Amino acid sequence: MIQRIYKPEPERLSAALCDAHGQMSMASLETRLIVAATRHADALGIGYRELMADRNVWVLSRMSIEMERMPAILDTFVIETWVESFSRHISYRNFAVLDGEGRPMGYARSLWTCISLDTRRPSTLAPLDCAAEGRECPIASIPRLTAVGEPVETSEVTFSYSDIDFNRHVNSARYVERLADALGMEWHDRHRIVRLDIAYLHETHYGDKAHIDIARSEDDTRLDADITVGDTAVCRARLTVAPR
Amino acid sequence: MIQRIYKPEPERLSAALCDAHGQMSMASLETRLIVAATRHADALGIGYRELMADRNVWVLSRMSIEMERMPAILDTFVIETWVESFSRHISYRNFAVLDGEGRPMGYARSLWTCISLDTRRPSTLAPLDCAAEGRECPIASIPRLTAVGEPVETSEVTFSYSDIDFNRHVNSARYVERLADALGMEWHDRHRIVRLDIAYLHETHYGDKAHIDIARSEDDTRLDADITVGDTAVCRARLTVAPR
Repeated sequence: MIQRIYKPEPERLSAALCDAHGQMSMASLETRLIVAATRHADALGIGYRELMADRNVWVLSRMSIEMERMPAILDTFVIETWVESFSRHISYRNFAVLDGEGRPMGYARSLWTCISLDTRRPSTLAPLDCAAEGRECPIASIPRLTAVGEPVETSEVTFSYSDIDFNRHVNSARYVERLADALGMEWHDRHRIVRLDIAYLHETHYGDKAHIDIARSEDDTRLDADITVGDTAVCRARLTVAPR
Repeated sequence: MIQRIYKPEPERLSAALCDAHGQMSMASLETRLIVAATRHADALGIGYRELMADRNVWVLSRMSIEMERMPAILDTFVIETWVESFSRHISYRNFAVLDGEGRPMGYARSLWTCISLDTRRPSTLAPLDCAAEGRECPIASIPRLTAVGEPVETSEVTFSYSDIDFNRHVNSARYVERLADALGMEWHDRHRIVRLDIAYLHETHYGDKAHIDIARSEDDTRLDADITVGDTAVCRARLTVAPR
């Protein structure tokens, strides 16, 4: 029987996995969402092994994460995930992060594309009735992100060995990590990220030098970022923020 | 009853968590060992919560990891851990990494110190009979690491937001990550790390600028590294390597 909602065992957040604020970082949460997605795809028979048999892989195109609160040291939490819709080339997949009592801490939406490793173009999947139709994801849709306006601060980053995944591209969560680093500790001490919208536009490789351009809204509730390599925007992100 | 050997459920390594070679990286393995140690300490009643009640924390002083092979994409593996000896201020803790059939993939040894958050000096723990006396850890002891000799290559790193843990120090595994990055992708394409010995000598903070000095043995089987901030060696590591 098809497992329409993937519900692993709840776990407790180890102190060793927490950020400077004793919580799960946004980059670490995104990694966990991706792992949950990957495990559910494996369980559905549309995972790494099955796709690789045809030289295809899932690529994360967009992710929107909205959290009321982040799991903190020794908090119990669980990440549930389900497919909202599945078509020939793409899949919309949602997530709920629940606490130890099953109360929502936040939700996420994501868009995945199946591409051919040989052509790097979208590849076609067989139809699969796997969507969990009843399950709600009560956060706003994935937005279109446009290039950042002025004013802009720029920093530079070179992607290194630890940023690269098995596919020889920069790991999706590492863009979030580099953006979080560009903001600096003082910014994180004063702000909490309420929502992250991120679009992965182009693959980036080992040794690529990227610019991170950041524009902040005047009321300090929003921050837009473009990550570019040469003249190409490779990743675009928006942070909705609140005082910590 | 005291759980002398911590044995979690085996898991499968998600593709999303693999390095450029489709395997668990050494830094990622060290993080998992630390998490297993933390969970076992929680189960033994000498975890984060209990120690923090007296303003104490466990600090990792040394770690030696020796792997015959690393878990790769979709491999099943489990990390078991046990205390070898436990005295007033310190604890020696060992680890076994087993594959899906229970065969050893490698082992690790570690030394932990209990320190006071207020004085940053070793703190005293009540005696606890928790050692797993029969369990063997068939790898060489934790060595003393001395300062690197010549010839030396030097690179520079500044510790950023994502490197910092809840304790506001650089996360132990991040030194391994920065060292792995300093070696570069070509080095990793040609070499496999068979054993890591690492000693954490001084705490490092957000924004600290460190130098990584690396000396390679002439026969290309060993590599010694010092990470220094100013004139202080904060971390020292030795890699035993083999051709990939």
